[in-house]
Amino acid sequence: MEKRDMPKNTFALKGVICYSQTPSRLAIEPDGYVVCEGQKSAGVFSGLPAQYAGIDCLDTGGCLIFPGFTDLHLHAPQYAVRGLGMDMELLDWLHTYIFPEEAKYRDLAYAQKAYSLFAEALLKSATTRACIFATLHVPATLLLMELLEQTGLITLVGKVNMDRNAVPNLQEPDAQSAAKTTVSWIRESLCRFKNVKPILTPRFIPSCSDALMQSLKKIQRAYRLPLQSHLSENTEEVEWVRRLCPDAPGYAHAYDRFGLFGTPDCPTLMAHCVHCSDEEIALLQKRGVYVVHCSQSNTNLASGIAPVRRYLDAGIPMGLGSDMAAGAHLSMFRVMADSIQTSKLYWNLADRSAKPLTVEEVFYLATMGGGSFFGKTGSFAEGYAFDAVIVDDSGLTHPQPLTARQRLERLLYLGQDKHVVGKYVNGQKVL
Amino acid sequence: MEKRDMPKNTFALKGVICYSQTPSRLAIEPDGYVVCEGQKSAGVFSGLPAQYAGIDCLDTGGCLIFPGFTDLHLHAPQYAVRGLGMDMELLDWLHTYIFPEEAKYRDLAYAQKAYSLFAEALLKSATTRACIFATLHVPATLLLMELLEQTGLITLVGKVNMDRNAVPNLQEPDAQSAAKTTVSWIRESLCRFKNVKPILTPRFIPSCSDALMQSLKKIQRAYRLPLQSHLSENTEEVEWVRRLCPDAPGYAHAYDRFGLFGTPDCPTLMAHCVHCSDEEIALLQKRGVYVVHCSQSNTNLASGIAPVRRYLDAGIPMGLGSDMAAGAHLSMFRVMADSIQTSKLYWNLADRSAKPLTVEEVFYLATMGGGSFFGKTGSFAEGYAFDAVIVDDSGLTHPQPLTARQRLERLLYLGQDKHVVGKYVNGQKVL
Repeated sequence: MEKRDMPKNTFALKGVICYSQTPSRLAIEPDGYVVCEGQKSAGVFSGLPAQYAGIDCLDTGGCLIFPGFTDLHLHAPQYAVRGLGMDMELLDWLHTYIFPEEAKYRDLAYAQKAYSLFAEALLKSATTRACIFATLHVPATLLLMELLEQTGLITLVGKVNMDRNAVPNLQEPDAQSAAKTTVSWIRESLCRFKNVKPILTPRFIPSCSDALMQSLKKIQRAYRLPLQSHLSENTEEVEWVRRLCPDAPGYAHAYDRFGLFGTPDCPTLMAHCVHCSDEEIALLQKRGVYVVHCSQSNTNLASGIAPVRRYLDAGIPMGLGSDMAAGAHLSMFRVMADSIQTSKLYWNLADRSAKPLTVEEVFYLATMGGGSFFGKTGSFAEGYAFDAVIVDDSGLTHPQPLTARQRLERLLYLGQDKHVVGKYVNGQKVL
Repeated sequence: MEKRDMPKNTFALKGVICYSQTPSRLAIEPDGYVVCEGQKSAGVFSGLPAQYAGIDCLDTGGCLIFPGFTDLHLHAPQYAVRGLGMDMELLDWLHTYIFPEEAKYRDLAYAQKAYSLFAEALLKSATTRACIFATLHVPATLLLMELLEQTGLITLVGKVNMDRNAVPNLQEPDAQSAAKTTVSWIRESLCRFKNVKPILTPRFIPSCSDALMQSLKKIQRAYRLPLQSHLSENTEEVEWVRRLCPDAPGYAHAYDRFGLFGTPDCPTLMAHCVHCSDEEIALLQKRGVYVVHCSQSNTNLASGIAPVRRYLDAGIPMGLGSDMAAGAHLSMFRVMADSIQTSKLYWNLADRSAKPLTVEEVFYLATMGGGSFFGKTGSFAEGYAFDAVIVDDSGLTHPQPLTARQRLERLLYLGQDKHVVGKYVNGQKVL
């Protein structure tokens, strides 16, 4: 009788269930069930409750089952150059390697080839949701959105805005035409895609004129879109912003003066936040802006290490980003380990009061922390979106018994996308 | 006619040949041949010279071909706990996780299981030579040596000496019995193995009494063995050594006063060297002691970052170590990338005059730099031992043409052992 009331898509996964309850509390059900009803989790159970008797149940044979990871910051066109050109700091790196690469996406045939590889890699990873920079080109961005739509992953994709200080073949001609193009891209993508939505994406302050930022605010008001950008990544960049915006007390304020630094209905992501001043941190907190911690990127471009303990202590919303391709790896396992590792070096070299991140904390950041940007996402607690990954770590050989917590810790260091053997998004199997 | 004069084992590999010529100079022959005569390289050629016409030639179809990597510092028994227990600093980590794990190697059945996994993993990696810590147990150490012998890799393996400050079930009873056991292990292993040789291995100063160190010097004189140990890894450890050896001006001197810090015929390896004083650095230089840079280990145990640019500038011999399992990865690709990455953070956070390491430099350190501990090893220049790895990176998809240099850089960041499709040691195919 009760079964008749259950939504159509009701099933269970059986295995070692791990999910966060708070930033420091990880729940583990070593031989448990997580139940999906429709698109949502109905909770985790040590034994299957009577009302679910007879539902489909996939016994994973002791695999680990996590909420899917959220990658809050990555550049799809840069997947093609991952692991290349790692010998410069941000501004030289952009001009020497990245802008010439992104300029290639004017060519749809190149975009098709490159974005297909990226979409396939993202599908095979443990990531279920992501916030993604494309390039400034509308056709290639729509193509990327189409390819991502087909994966079943939930993504926010931004056509990049940049109308100054770039290179002639990768720059919008002026603010007015940039705004017009952006609106037509938003309209097109809002009606075409179900899993992929547009996100406003001014590249960063140095790339965007005041007129463009003003237009983006108008567009945000009209379409209520979230926004993603970069903040205080590199000291030269911070100095450049100071020169470009002499009236703004800080880099964060250079966004805020346009109303583009967090509003209640249009949440904002700021990648990096390595060199934020006290005033900027206060503003992040006041506006509820998400910090995206991109540990490997900040290492590869020698930007520094973000004060993540401070952000956590201040209750600033935070998630993790691979920042492909300043970070060379899409894998959120690697992103989590990198975050722990650099937090140890920060403690050692910069601030002995900043306790390194724990396994529990980075797992939280990669699931609930970043997932909250998408709403009730990133946990298996009842009512959360049913995003799940099944991980078979049996290829990581060992001679001794391991606890579930040990298997999870080990995966952060040794896990690879090949260990992902199943993936669900909003209750739908995508892998 | 000329062919008749060539050694029996003469063959060529054809592909993209990369090898170091100096610390900063990488030679690349994009469609070349490296020729093996007997156990040695006869050099690299853009076309196969006439005198080699008709020899066996393996065309790898555009694979990358490198000299095999040398891992100068790793702990075989810790492979079983890689990626686990990464939440403590050195001394607590040893007592909480490592000593209890190493104590298990008293049980030969456990050692068989664990060391078999380790030896198989090392064989499949891009490493051709390694300096390895075992445990204090002779039977398990001989078993490890036997398993490594079968791989065909060239290794130096140390039965660990430790007669104080450990835990009751992982400590030699006293200096005298430790010395006696060590001699019998050396005798046994010197006559039993061809590819594997013993290396003296006092764990570190805190674990070894003065009497034990004196005995090890006598043993070294008798058998002319190299020595490996740890130096100045962690600040608490350095402070402990200061208290244990109040008469030694520094940690390095605590080895040197026993004559165990580098002699012309018995070279010495010191892992870490993160916190060396100016006096210790002068002594490293004077004695020609090898520094083994273990970047990931120093990150995971929050030890800090070694001043590698200073060691390079001072001409101190140096190589790289995975330091399994304070480092979670055996792969020397990862070890190279980690070394670049932490050198950038060192530049950013500790010393703006310390230029970060380059791809060329870490490749040199992983091949010729560390290889020189084994003699003329780690290059394809004529006369070097023919250790070679063939790497198929075609699984690392990309939409654009890449140069050989780009493929090499990318491998540092994205390379995995699965990309190794062939391996030779001293001219013999081992994989």
